[in-house]
Amino acid sequence: MKRTAFFISDGTGLTAEALGNSLLAQFEKIDFEKVTVPYIDDADKARDMVKRINKASETDQSRPLVFDTIVNSDIRGIISNADCFMVDIFGTFLNPLEQELQASSSYSVGKSHSINNAGNYERRIEAVNFALDNDDGARTRYYDEADLILVGASRSGKTPTCLYLALQYGVKAANYPITEEDLNDQQMPSALKPHKEKIFGLTIEPERLATIRNERRPNSRYSSIKQCMHEIEEIELMYRRERIPYLNTTAYSVEEISTRIMVATGLKRNR
Amino acid sequence: MKRTAFFISDGTGLTAEALGNSLLAQFEKIDFEKVTVPYIDDADKARDMVKRINKASETDQSRPLVFDTIVNSDIRGIISNADCFMVDIFGTFLNPLEQELQASSSYSVGKSHSINNAGNYERRIEAVNFALDNDDGARTRYYDEADLILVGASRSGKTPTCLYLALQYGVKAANYPITEEDLNDQQMPSALKPHKEKIFGLTIEPERLATIRNERRPNSRYSSIKQCMHEIEEIELMYRRERIPYLNTTAYSVEEISTRIMVATGLKRNR
Repeated sequence: MKRTAFFISDGTGLTAEALGNSLLAQFEKIDFEKVTVPYIDDADKARDMVKRINKASETDQSRPLVFDTIVNSDIRGIISNADCFMVDIFGTFLNPLEQELQASSSYSVGKSHSINNAGNYERRIEAVNFALDNDDGARTRYYDEADLILVGASRSGKTPTCLYLALQYGVKAANYPITEEDLNDQQMPSALKPHKEKIFGLTIEPERLATIRNERRPNSRYSSIKQCMHEIEEIELMYRRERIPYLNTTAYSVEEISTRIMVATGLKRNR
Repeated sequence: MKRTAFFISDGTGLTAEALGNSLLAQFEKIDFEKVTVPYIDDADKARDMVKRINKASETDQSRPLVFDTIVNSDIRGIISNADCFMVDIFGTFLNPLEQELQASSSYSVGKSHSINNAGNYERRIEAVNFALDNDDGARTRYYDEADLILVGASRSGKTPTCLYLALQYGVKAANYPITEEDLNDQQMPSALKPHKEKIFGLTIEPERLATIRNERRPNSRYSSIKQCMHEIEEIELMYRRERIPYLNTTAYSVEEISTRIMVATGLKRNR
């Protein structure tokens, strides 16, 4: 049986979606049709939403779940008339929080992903630009400015991780691919030596690496399991020899890799 | 008076943080010290956490707020012994959801940002690579594969938006900077013509654009307010003439720009 789950917000819907997904992940056997609806910020849109929820209820023959982060209680009130089971964040927690903080809520809409703090926001964008400009060992002369230098084999996940660290945490992360030449030298690449304390290593199961590389360059030496095994073995040896902290990324998403790096390095977020 | 707010999770903490931030954004006059603590996934870590919360309580002379998304109720139980005000997501909503769904929770930890669905996850990483490879008009021959082509003046926010669309929604977005030469031609750039239905335009207040450009190339013609005004005027004219849908990004964050593009284009997420 299919159940529809709506994530509804007066802003981007990212919070409602994150919350709804984390709760629904606990019910693995149920088939959810997930629908995110951002910017429900007036009564007309809320009434349209009620129709949409009721329609899903009829189609599914069971009432939809609604996860909402709508600040305005009038709009929430309209939604609550729909035939649905409502997980209502603000309705549930805002009042108790007001009492605990002995302060009244400002009931301001769409705050959590807006440019609240312009300085912080600019640091995030600056960090994205830094990650792009210092990607893939392209430039090493700005490593002084980096908060972090990610190293690892080609295609071990460095670039998406640097971008996520920039967007989510405002951290300036450069990345440097460790090549065969670097490994043949039996020492740390010279561009990295002065910045040892900023270096964090990624590693990955050779089988997984070969699969990823094969998508880019099928049937090449670069993508062969033999080559991947060799590189990973040598790279892990270097990490241990040079005492570089490192993480095996095989089973982790970009979000998890990034969070684990933040924890392991003790880096502070810049936002 | 300062209040400490802890966002605690057995996973990345991203959900607890998003939820906590969206609630705390409602109390603008209170100065919160926000601390995210991921991977609290056993009793020992929970007991350390209690000490940390109690210490903050003493320092602040008022009890901290705790927003948690810990699945395991034993671990949650330990945390609840701390001197804190707890906004407990799973404790509040999991039981009612179990009843509504007539199913028991799997109580599986750290699900919401893990590689649950490997196919979807790979599409997101593929989309990131697509955005990088097709950034800044570098290549136009893969526009067939794009879900979206963002156009706009240099530094109007195209690249971070493309990357966010890729990471968050798995959408393959290329971007193309509209240059003065393009504008002099008085017609749509030839690389874009065959893909008109995929094009979305960004615009920005000239003053804001000049500020951003000045950070990169101070006191240049490129960064002058006169040049920015000229480019933006011509670009908006082109959008209207060619009926390209567009958005003014001046007041919006990358998250908001991306969400509004998803709504305006009706693009489906790929994750």
